[in-house]
Amino acid sequence: MKTKVAILGATGYTGIELIRYLANHPGIEITVLTSEKYAGKKIREVFPFLDNFDFPLLPVDDPMVIKKADFVFSCLPPEKSAEMVPEIVKNRKMVVDLSAAFRFKDKNVYKKWYHSHPYPQLLKKAVYGLPELFRDEIRNSMLVANPGCYPVSVLLPLVPLLRNSKIKLKGRIIVDSKSGVTGAGRNPNQELHFPEVNEGFKPYKPLAHRHQPEMEAVLGQAARKNLIVSFVPHLLPINRGILSSIYLNPSSDGDFERAVETLRKFYSAEKFVKILQANTLPNTSCLKGSNYCHIALSYNKDHKNIIIFSAIDNLGKGASGNAVQNMNIMLGIDETAGLEAKPVYP
Amino acid sequence: MKTKVAILGATGYTGIELIRYLANHPGIEITVLTSEKYAGKKIREVFPFLDNFDFPLLPVDDPMVIKKADFVFSCLPPEKSAEMVPEIVKNRKMVVDLSAAFRFKDKNVYKKWYHSHPYPQLLKKAVYGLPELFRDEIRNSMLVANPGCYPVSVLLPLVPLLRNSKIKLKGRIIVDSKSGVTGAGRNPNQELHFPEVNEGFKPYKPLAHRHQPEMEAVLGQAARKNLIVSFVPHLLPINRGILSSIYLNPSSDGDFERAVETLRKFYSAEKFVKILQANTLPNTSCLKGSNYCHIALSYNKDHKNIIIFSAIDNLGKGASGNAVQNMNIMLGIDETAGLEAKPVYP
Amino acid sequence: MKTKVAILGATGYTGIELIRYLANHPGIEITVLTSEKYAGKKIREVFPFLDNFDFPLLPVDDPMVIKKADFVFSCLPPEKSAEMVPEIVKNRKMVVDLSAAFRFKDKNVYKKWYHSHPYPQLLKKAVYGLPELFRDEIRNSMLVANPGCYPVSVLLPLVPLLRNSKIKLKGRIIVDSKSGVTGAGRNPNQELHFPEVNEGFKPYKPLAHRHQPEMEAVLGQAARKNLIVSFVPHLLPINRGILSSIYLNPSSDGDFERAVETLRKFYSAEKFVKILQANTLPNTSCLKGSNYCHIALSYNKDHKNIIIFSAIDNLGKGASGNAVQNMNIMLGIDETAGLEAKPVYP
Amino acid sequence: MKTKVAILGATGYTGIELIRYLANHPGIEITVLTSEKYAGKKIREVFPFLDNFDFPLLPVDDPMVIKKADFVFSCLPPEKSAEMVPEIVKNRKMVVDLSAAFRFKDKNVYKKWYHSHPYPQLLKKAVYGLPELFRDEIRNSMLVANPGCYPVSVLLPLVPLLRNSKIKLKGRIIVDSKSGVTGAGRNPNQELHFPEVNEGFKPYKPLAHRHQPEMEAVLGQAARKNLIVSFVPHLLPINRGILSSIYLNPSSDGDFERAVETLRKFYSAEKFVKILQANTLPNTSCLKGSNYCHIALSYNKDHKNIIIFSAIDNLGKGASGNAVQNMNIMLGIDETAGLEAKPVYP
Repeated sequence: MKTKVAILGATGYTGIELIRYLANHPGIEITVLTSEKYAGKKIREVFPFLDNFDFPLLPVDDPMVIKKADFVFSCLPPEKSAEMVPEIVKNRKMVVDLSAAFRFKDKNVYKKWYHSHPYPQLLKKAVYGLPELFRDEIRNSMLVANPGCYPVSVLLPLVPLLRNSKIKLKGRIIVDSKSGVTGAGRNPNQELHFPEVNEGFKPYKPLAHRHQPEMEAVLGQAARKNLIVSFVPHLLPINRGILSSIYLNPSSDGDFERAVETLRKFYSAEKFVKILQANTLPNTSCLKGSNYCHIALSYNKDHKNIIIFSAIDNLGKGASGNAVQNMNIMLGIDETAGLEAKPVYP
Repeated sequence: MKTKVAILGATGYTGIELIRYLANHPGIEITVLTSEKYAGKKIREVFPFLDNFDFPLLPVDDPMVIKKADFVFSCLPPEKSAEMVPEIVKNRKMVVDLSAAFRFKDKNVYKKWYHSHPYPQLLKKAVYGLPELFRDEIRNSMLVANPGCYPVSVLLPLVPLLRNSKIKLKGRIIVDSKSGVTGAGRNPNQELHFPEVNEGFKPYKPLAHRHQPEMEAVLGQAARKNLIVSFVPHLLPINRGILSSIYLNPSSDGDFERAVETLRKFYSAEKFVKILQANTLPNTSCLKGSNYCHIALSYNKDHKNIIIFSAIDNLGKGASGNAVQNMNIMLGIDETAGLEAKPVYP
Repeated sequence: MKTKVAILGATGYTGIELIRYLANHPGIEITVLTSEKYAGKKIREVFPFLDNFDFPLLPVDDPMVIKKADFVFSCLPPEKSAEMVPEIVKNRKMVVDLSAAFRFKDKNVYKKWYHSHPYPQLLKKAVYGLPELFRDEIRNSMLVANPGCYPVSVLLPLVPLLRNSKIKLKGRIIVDSKSGVTGAGRNPNQELHFPEVNEGFKPYKPLAHRHQPEMEAVLGQAARKNLIVSFVPHLLPINRGILSSIYLNPSSDGDFERAVETLRKFYSAEKFVKILQANTLPNTSCLKGSNYCHIALSYNKDHKNIIIFSAIDNLGKGASGNAVQNMNIMLGIDETAGLEAKPVYP
Repeated sequence: MKTKVAILGATGYTGIELIRYLANHPGIEITVLTSEKYAGKKIREVFPFLDNFDFPLLPVDDPMVIKKADFVFSCLPPEKSAEMVPEIVKNRKMVVDLSAAFRFKDKNVYKKWYHSHPYPQLLKKAVYGLPELFRDEIRNSMLVANPGCYPVSVLLPLVPLLRNSKIKLKGRIIVDSKSGVTGAGRNPNQELHFPEVNEGFKPYKPLAHRHQPEMEAVLGQAARKNLIVSFVPHLLPINRGILSSIYLNPSSDGDFERAVETLRKFYSAEKFVKILQANTLPNTSCLKGSNYCHIALSYNKDHKNIIIFSAIDNLGKGASGNAVQNMNIMLGIDETAGLEAKPVYP
C-alpha cells in the first residue's frame, strides 16, 4: 500500500518541485496539498501542468490535513512551520520540514537569526537531513530538518574534509556562493521583479545571511571546534542553481591530494554526489531539475589555496530532491526512488 | 528482454534529450551512441551528468552501430540521414529519423527546400510521425519521420479542424511562431553567439522557412485541398520552447464553438495534448523538459479572427519526446513509457 | 536660460529613463522629481547611478512641484494623471503626459477601457504625441499625450500606408506584438516575479488589451473609416524592446512596392525612424537605450500577405525618448537634443 | 579641428562600443574603421544602428589606415596588435591598445602567458592606462595599454590600499570575479553558444587566467613587493558586467576603517569611480553602457575579512569607456568628453 503524503505550502517553488518528484514515485501517493493563497481551487487551475490531482487545495489548518496523510512535507515559512510541525509529530506522522524551523540544536542561535522558538524541546529530537552525512540518524527519525540550499552546497564537500584529522586547514573558510532566484521563494517583491534581476548580478547580506550559522554549526561539529565561515551570497539572474566557490587555506601541499582522495572515497558509493574528473569544473546548467551535486577541486602550488567548486540545483539537492531522498530513507525504501531523472540540459 | 537502441548524433541537443528520456525507460537499453566530434570518448567525459554509459562514442559509419542495435534514432543532419537511414532500414532495424530526410512524400518539394534525395523511393514508405494524428500508420511502420518542431505546434491544433468539414475557414492561415534557441542545434555560429541572442528578439526567414512546406503538405492532406500557410518564425532568447500564434478566418461566429468542441473531443483521451480551460493561456515555461502540448483558443465577435495559441518544448513534443512516443508505438509498448515526468517549472 | 523640468513619478522605469535622457540635455535642467514611495530621500539613495541631483524627492501633491518647474512630464498612472495634469495646465505649464489619460478624443472609449474621465473637456485639447505623424499639432500644444508603447510600434509603419489611398488593404489588420517586461512598469507582482517570466514566453489579453482602441482610433482617422485591429500582445523575457509583426492583406501585388516606397519617402528625412534595407530584419537588441524605430517589410507573391516588422525600445521611442522628442518640439529647440546616443549593443 | 580617429578591429564588441562612445564626441571624428571579416562593406550594413559612417570598412593593413588617422585605437587580438602597433607608433600617431600586447613591462612574463613579443623594447615605453592610478604617465604617452577588464575591477579598489603603508594586509588576496559574456569577444565558439551559457553559471581557468599576472604586476608595484592573487573568474549568463568579490586579510580591526577612508579620499574627486554609501552594494545592472566603477566594502569583526565588491561594465570602464578616457587625457581635452551618459537601467 502506498504511503499517503501531504505537502504543506504546495504552491511555492519547493512545493511544486516536490509534486514533480513525487508525481511518479512508485511508493507514495499525494493525498493532501495545502495553500492559503489558492485554497479551494484545484492545483491544476493554478498550474495546468500539474494535471493529475483531483482534490482541492486545503488551508493548512484544515483538520483533514493530518487525517488524510501518513507523511508530511512542510514547505511553510519557518515561523509557521515551527507552530505546525509539533502538532503533526504529536499525531505520530513522519515529517520532513523544508524550512529552518528545526535545523538548529541551539535555541539561542535560532532565536538570534530567526525568532523565539515555540517548541525548543523538539530541536534536540530533529535530525539534520543531509543523507550523505547523516543517513543513520535520518533512518531512525520522525522529524527531519531539510538543510538550507546554500549549506547543502557547502557541507557536502567540507564535512568529509573536516572530519579527516590529517587535513590541516588554517584560518578562515571563505565561501563565495551564487544562487538562482527560486531560492528566494515565489512571493513577489521589488528586488525580485524581473527587470531588477535580469541582466544584473549582485552580492547581498555579506557575512550576515542566516545560512551562515547553519553551516557553522554543522562544520563545527565535524571539526570538533568552533569554525567561522565568511559566507557571501550573490544573486544570479537564472531560475535554478547554486555554485559555491570555497577557499581553503591548507597547511601543506599534501593537503590537496588528501582532500581529493578523501572526497573521492567518501562519495564513491553515493549516487547523487559526484567528484568530477580533474580539469572538469561544475556548471549549474548541468544540474537543472536533478538531485545531483557536482564537486571539483583546484590547486596551484604558487597560491596555496585549495579551491572547491560545488554546484547543485537549489530546488533539487538544495531542497525538494533532497527532501524526497530523506523520505525514502525514513520509509525504508530505495533511496533513489523518484529521483532517477537526468538533469534537463540545456 | 530490452530493445537495444542506437542514437546517431548523440551529442547534439536532440540526442542528449533522447538519452535523458530513455535513460530510465523500462523497456529499452541504449547500446550505441555516435558522435563524429567526440568519437572515442565516453559521453560522460563530454556531459558529466550522463554518467551511466560505459561504452565509447562511435563514428556513425562504424559497422558496430547496426550490429549492436535493434532500434535506431537518427539525429543526423538531413543530408547525412538521407544517406544512412536506407542502409539501416535494409538491415531490418526500425528507425525514427528526427531529421527532415523522410518527412516529405513529394521528392520535388524535398529537393526544392533541402537537396536532391538519394533514395526517393523510400519517401513513400516513411510515415509522418505525429502520433495523435497518425497513430495507426506509425504502429505498422519500420521508418518514421519525426516532424519538425514548428510543424508539431501547428499541426496538432489545425489538423482536426481542417478534417472537420463543418468548420469553414476562409483565406490564408497566418502562423506567427516563436522558438527558443535549441531548435537551431548545438553547432555554434555568429547569429547564435550568446550576446547576439540574449536580450534580443527578431524574426527570421519570413515566408521562407523550410518548415512551411512541411506544414502545408500535412494540412493540405487534411483539408483535401492546397493550403497556403504564411509562416513567420521568430527567435526567442530562451533555451527551450515554441509558442505559435495562429490566426484563422472563420465563416461565421459558430465556427469558434465548433473549433473548441472539435479539439476538446479529439484530444479528450490523449495524454500529451491538453486543450486549456477558457481564460487560461499557454506559457512555454510550463512545458520545459516534457512531452506536452498546451493549446488555447481565443475569439472576439468584433474581430472575426479565431486565434489559437499552441505551445510545446521544442526538444520534447517538438523532437525527442515525440520520437520516444513514436518508438513506444512502433514497439507496441505503453505509449507513455519514459515520458511520464512533469515539466520542470520554473 | 535652461527650462526647468519636473518629472512626476520619477522612480518608475519611464521616470528613470527620462532622467537618463535629460541628464545631459543642453537646454533643460531637472528641478523637481516626485515619488510617493521614496519621498524625502534623494534619488541617488535609491539609484546610486543617478548621482547628480541634490534635491529630495517630493510627494506629487507638494505645492513646490508646480512652482519650481516650467515643463512637466507625468509618469503617473492614468487615474492619477487625469487628476493632476489639468491643474498643471491651468497653471500654464507645458505637459507631456506619458500615461493614457489624454490619449483619447472620445470620452466614452476612454471610460470603457480605463475609467470615467474627470476632465473630459481637456481630451479635445490634448494632442496625440507621435512627432513623425503629428509634429505640427505638437508644436502648438500645451498638453501632449505621449502614445502607448505598442501603438508607437504599430502606428509608425501603418499610418503613412493608410493615408495613401493608392494602397488598398482588405479585411482585418493582424498585429502580433511582443514586449519586454519594463513595459509593465516597476511595481512587483506575481506574474512579473523573475522566475515566472524568465525562460518563458506567453500571450496575454488577446483581443482585449487597452492599447488596441488607441491604435484603432489613430488608424481609423488616417484611413477615414472605422478599422479593426486584431491585436495580440505577448510577454518576452527581456528588459527592453517591442517587436510587432503586422499582417496586411493587399488587393494586388503592386501594393507591396507602393508600401515600401511610401514608407521610404515618408521617413526619408526622419532621424529616428529607419526603413531597413531589403533582406535586413529588425532585432530589438539593436535598439536598447535609443529613440529609434526600425521597420522592415516582407512579401511573397504566393502568400499575398504584406508583413511588416517594427521594433523599438519600449522605454525609448515607446515612452521616454519619444517624450523628450515631444518636449524638444514644444520648446522649439533641436528635436534631437538629448537623443543622439547610439543604442547600447549588445 | 577635430582629431581623426581610427579603430582597428571595429566590428568586435570593444570596437562597436568605441564607436558608440565616440559617435557624439565633440572633439574627434572617426575616419577609419577596419574589419577583416566585413572589409569592403559599410558598417551600417553590418550594424544598421551605426548609421552615420559613409566610408567602407578597410582591411587592417590597408595603407590608408595610417594616412587618414591621427589617433588609433587597436581592438585587434594581442598577437596582431603586437605586430601592428609599433608601425603606427613609428608614424608618430598616438595609440590606445585595448589588447594585452603592451600591458606588461616584463617580456618574460608576457611570453609565458601570451607569446614571444616581436617588439619587446616598446614594452618599457608603453603606459598602463588606468587613468585614476596613472593619469600623469598617460598624459605624456604616445602608447597606452588599456587594462584588462578583470584587472580594472580589481586594481581600482586595491592599488590605493596597497600604496597606503598604514594598512597591513596579510596572506594571499582572493579575487572571486564574475563576468558577462561580451568579455570573451564576438567570435562564436561552442562554449559561448547561447544555450550553453544561458541559465548556467560556472568557473573557468581558476588560478590560471592571464589577467592574473597583469593584476599581480600592478599590485606588486603598488605594494613594493611580490604579491600573489588567487584569481578565479566565473562566467555570468549576461551580456555586460563584471563584479569582483575581493577577500582581504587585515592585521587589525582598524584596517577596515582605514581602507574605507583611503578609498573615499582617493576617489573623492574622481568622476567615474564611486565608493558607495554604507549598506549599499553594487549591482552590475546599474552600470550598463557607462564608464563607472562602483565599489563597496564590508566587514564584520567576527570574520576578520575585509570584503570589497567592485563592479563595472566590462565594455565600459573595463574596455572602451576607459580607452576613450585615456584618449581624452592624451589629447589634453576634457577627460569626461563622450562619457557623460548615464547607465541604461534596467
